[in-house]
Amino acid sequence: MAVPSASHSITMRLRLGADPRAIGRVTTAVGEAEGVVNAIDIVESRSDHVIVDLTVNTAGADHVDRITKAVAAVPDADVHKVSDRTFLLHLGGKLEVQSRVPLKTRDDLSKAYTPGVARVSLAIAENPEDARRLTIKRNTVAVVTDGSAVLGLGNIGPAAALPVMEGKAALFKRFANVDAWPVCLDTQDTDEIVRTVQLIAPVYGGVNLEDIAAPRCFEVERRLRETLDIPVFHDDQHGTAIVVLAALTNALRVVGKRMEDVSVVLAGAGAAGVAIIKILQAEGVTDIIACDRRGIIHAGLEGLDDSKRWVADHTNRARRTGSLRDALVGADVFIGVSGPDILDPSDIATMASDAIVFALANPVPEVDPAGAREHAAVVATGRSDEPNQINNVLAFPGVFRGALDAGARQITEEMEVAAARAIASVVDDEELSANYIIPSVFNPDVVPAVAEAVREAAEASQATREV
Amino acid sequence: MAVPSASHSITMRLRLGADPRAIGRVTTAVGEAEGVVNAIDIVESRSDHVIVDLTVNTAGADHVDRITKAVAAVPDADVHKVSDRTFLLHLGGKLEVQSRVPLKTRDDLSKAYTPGVARVSLAIAENPEDARRLTIKRNTVAVVTDGSAVLGLGNIGPAAALPVMEGKAALFKRFANVDAWPVCLDTQDTDEIVRTVQLIAPVYGGVNLEDIAAPRCFEVERRLRETLDIPVFHDDQHGTAIVVLAALTNALRVVGKRMEDVSVVLAGAGAAGVAIIKILQAEGVTDIIACDRRGIIHAGLEGLDDSKRWVADHTNRARRTGSLRDALVGADVFIGVSGPDILDPSDIATMASDAIVFALANPVPEVDPAGAREHAAVVATGRSDEPNQINNVLAFPGVFRGALDAGARQITEEMEVAAARAIASVVDDEELSANYIIPSVFNPDVVPAVAEAVREAAEASQATREV
Repeated sequence: MAVPSASHSITMRLRLGADPRAIGRVTTAVGEAEGVVNAIDIVESRSDHVIVDLTVNTAGADHVDRITKAVAAVPDADVHKVSDRTFLLHLGGKLEVQSRVPLKTRDDLSKAYTPGVARVSLAIAENPEDARRLTIKRNTVAVVTDGSAVLGLGNIGPAAALPVMEGKAALFKRFANVDAWPVCLDTQDTDEIVRTVQLIAPVYGGVNLEDIAAPRCFEVERRLRETLDIPVFHDDQHGTAIVVLAALTNALRVVGKRMEDVSVVLAGAGAAGVAIIKILQAEGVTDIIACDRRGIIHAGLEGLDDSKRWVADHTNRARRTGSLRDALVGADVFIGVSGPDILDPSDIATMASDAIVFALANPVPEVDPAGAREHAAVVATGRSDEPNQINNVLAFPGVFRGALDAGARQITEEMEVAAARAIASVVDDEELSANYIIPSVFNPDVVPAVAEAVREAAEASQATREV
Repeated sequence: MAVPSASHSITMRLRLGADPRAIGRVTTAVGEAEGVVNAIDIVESRSDHVIVDLTVNTAGADHVDRITKAVAAVPDADVHKVSDRTFLLHLGGKLEVQSRVPLKTRDDLSKAYTPGVARVSLAIAENPEDARRLTIKRNTVAVVTDGSAVLGLGNIGPAAALPVMEGKAALFKRFANVDAWPVCLDTQDTDEIVRTVQLIAPVYGGVNLEDIAAPRCFEVERRLRETLDIPVFHDDQHGTAIVVLAALTNALRVVGKRMEDVSVVLAGAGAAGVAIIKILQAEGVTDIIACDRRGIIHAGLEGLDDSKRWVADHTNRARRTGSLRDALVGADVFIGVSGPDILDPSDIATMASDAIVFALANPVPEVDPAGAREHAAVVATGRSDEPNQINNVLAFPGVFRGALDAGARQITEEMEVAAARAIASVVDDEELSANYIIPSVFNPDVVPAVAEAVREAAEASQATREV
């Protein structure tokens, strides 16, 4: 059974009889059913009964059933209602649009709207660059999806993707004070996606592409980067790549190896995998072997699509062939962005000494992290309940904050590498250890460091405009 | 010269010498230059000088120059900086996107984002109607423009239209707690506008079309209404029509005439004009003559576009010809949605007794309101500095509030008429007078009354879904 967590927490409304021991019996029943009681709130207290809201972390729907039955079986306890707290949180959506200007008086209206606004519009018509100064464009990012590769859920479409995009926008605001807005497109046609983003672009200072399936995501990003004069960033590629580079930088500090010297084996050559290859090479890694379901990708393979052809042409200089397990023998670094449980801990034992393992498949990693830790010097995952969580939230808020502050027209590889170095630098030499190569998403130093590094890199590469 | 107003207000930062009479000399100079001093704020006070921020309402750019020169001429007064307060208000844009959920702890994150959000997405994938319950769609409206007919400024494009759309969104929030988002499209092609709105629709519970030029706006609205299952409302048409009908309802109460009996002359057969004709006819008006620049529109005219052809076919049953002035003789009601100063007050004298004049061109009405009042019983304009302001803000917030609350799939003529009646009903018999036929935009009774009426009309016509 999965571990009970807040992401699957319920509130049960109970009616208990007069016996003061009833509450204790209920919490015992929950505990015996392996639920975790989080809070007890008395809603109503009478001489002959009490109404109680009991909040319980559970491990999922079946577990909720089991806990509910266990509580219902307690003498003198009636279950009135069971509410899923995650659904309660999402009720009515997770975003709202607020006015930043007062609208109390007629004078307020005459400045914010007609007739005063006409002068602001005319100023922008005369000098379009003024839009960055006088409108929300300065601080606003579109979070664009076609709903084709949402989390691990696959192609669930634009309406079902909206809760995820809302959450992403909420994170943008929470971590970097960026105003982000969900754009869930009712099409999975590449031309239509590209054209629609071009047409809505005047409102935005940046575009965060999200959960768009490969290989479509590569073409969408390339064409938008070629035609728009605002930064376009596919987070599933570049956000992941930035945090992987940051984590690898610090993992190498722990084991005392250098980017130039290590051999890297990558499992998964999708959107994230390709971006990881590019950013590692930009930072000096030369020896990378990528694998997909069929094993090592090499130039001799038939039927490769464009992005895997690129991988074949840019990795595996020794033209090795074979399985992922073959590739892993003697390797310094394993990076998994593929699927659950494709390796045994014993496979990790075949790697070089002081091996580094990033098993990022979520929620179930490529290899059991506890088992991997038996053989590797440093282990990181995508999970929040393990040390060293590789989480995109470390990258995208600061990247866009820095890009918007610089008035950047694009996000360059230099800006991405600068972001990774900034994340790595938040962990200083005293703190650094095998279990602390990457800061927490709640570390308040991360976003300012990333934003500053990205802004400076943007200005150095003149990928900016006057703001 | 225009009247000094808050919409063109400035703040001057001044350095004044030690003489305590200096401030008085400055305000006198402003007054002599016909500026209106609004506020004096001491920024810094020293023995030998004071720094003062002086806020002054002006009549426009030339007037600012004149006032600045007058102040600079005051002995011992230096003008450091003159800031346009409207531009200050718009700096950085007028909207922000706020999270409605807490994101303080890891548990918060796990509910609002991964992994908890996955269950919410799956619920919507299984039952798409749940998007209305579990996402921002429930309360969110797109404010869509192509920038082709912005205020009275004409075709200034999408970037320059953005300050207006932001203002509109701010009004939506202020008056009806609707979350509205600007969609400024970088195209003026009808097919592209329609397709883009269709593709972004999953996020929205309604579409407010804004400042799209006629006749394109008719086709855009018609095709979106045919294809989307959310309300589509072109405010320049229907918002104006609703408020005109409300004002006319009460003006007729003042003069004691009936919809069925009055003759109406309309100047302007653009987007607003056509919608006004339709809503007046829905409420029982039968005698309407519409005029454009060439005079009375009649079925015998050549070269009419589709919408004017519709006007010719649905008005002017007597097939009259001639000029606007010809049409006006003996008419009960004049409604102008055209341009400035096309009539003399003496023209109003040719109308029937107890004439009603709505001269809605902005900022300069079709006829001078003071002059018109000499001959008409009731006069209304679009101006905030005259009695009886016909302002769309009375309609659109409540219309969308009611439509969203009902989960309406469309906005029907019944809903529009209900909105107009609700606005009219806010003015009770005791309050009603020739100078008070329409409530103020700040009257707190308006939006709830409109929303309730629209919701009931939506439910009665079953244009709704379960919410």
